[in-house]
Amino acid sequence: MGETLKVAVKIMPRPEALDPQGRAVHGALKKLGFTVDDCRVGKIVILEINEDVAASAILKAQQMAEKLLYNPLIETFEVYAL
Amino acid sequence: MGETLKVAVKIMPRPEALDPQGRAVHGALKKLGFTVDDCRVGKIVILEINEDVAASAILKAQQMAEKLLYNPLIETFEVYAL
Repeated sequence: MGETLKVAVKIMPRPEALDPQGRAVHGALKKLGFTVDDCRVGKIVILEINEDVAASAILKAQQMAEKLLYNPLIETFEVYAL
Repeated sequence: MGETLKVAVKIMPRPEALDPQGRAVHGALKKLGFTVDDCRVGKIVILEINEDVAASAILKAQQMAEKLLYNPLIETFEVYAL
């Protein structure tokens, strides 16, 4: 029962980690004539969670991120309600 | 010269498009005992753009998204300043 809440888990490569996808996009943008100082590519996972309370949905999403979605060696994540 | 502004381009699969990555994550979460109603996986591109005015940086990022970053057949995007 209850409401369904949408929660986003945003996963980015750590600043010190290589980001081959970001470098590829950076290079491709340059070739197209766009100048950017930096470019990082991350993932975003939008979860619909059956919870009434935003704080509970966020906590669940945090657990999912820690168990499955992100790699702590090379990534950081943040969770927020949508 | 001027400031560097950070702009995010969030790219999501269209609601009507298949999202194999989202389905895979959904299945993996279920196996771990997490219940979610839906799960969609998108990309986020963080651009550092040498612009003083947020509106100009956002406009540039929009052009980059349209020229390179997103596939209009299967994806939607939104741009926002960070």
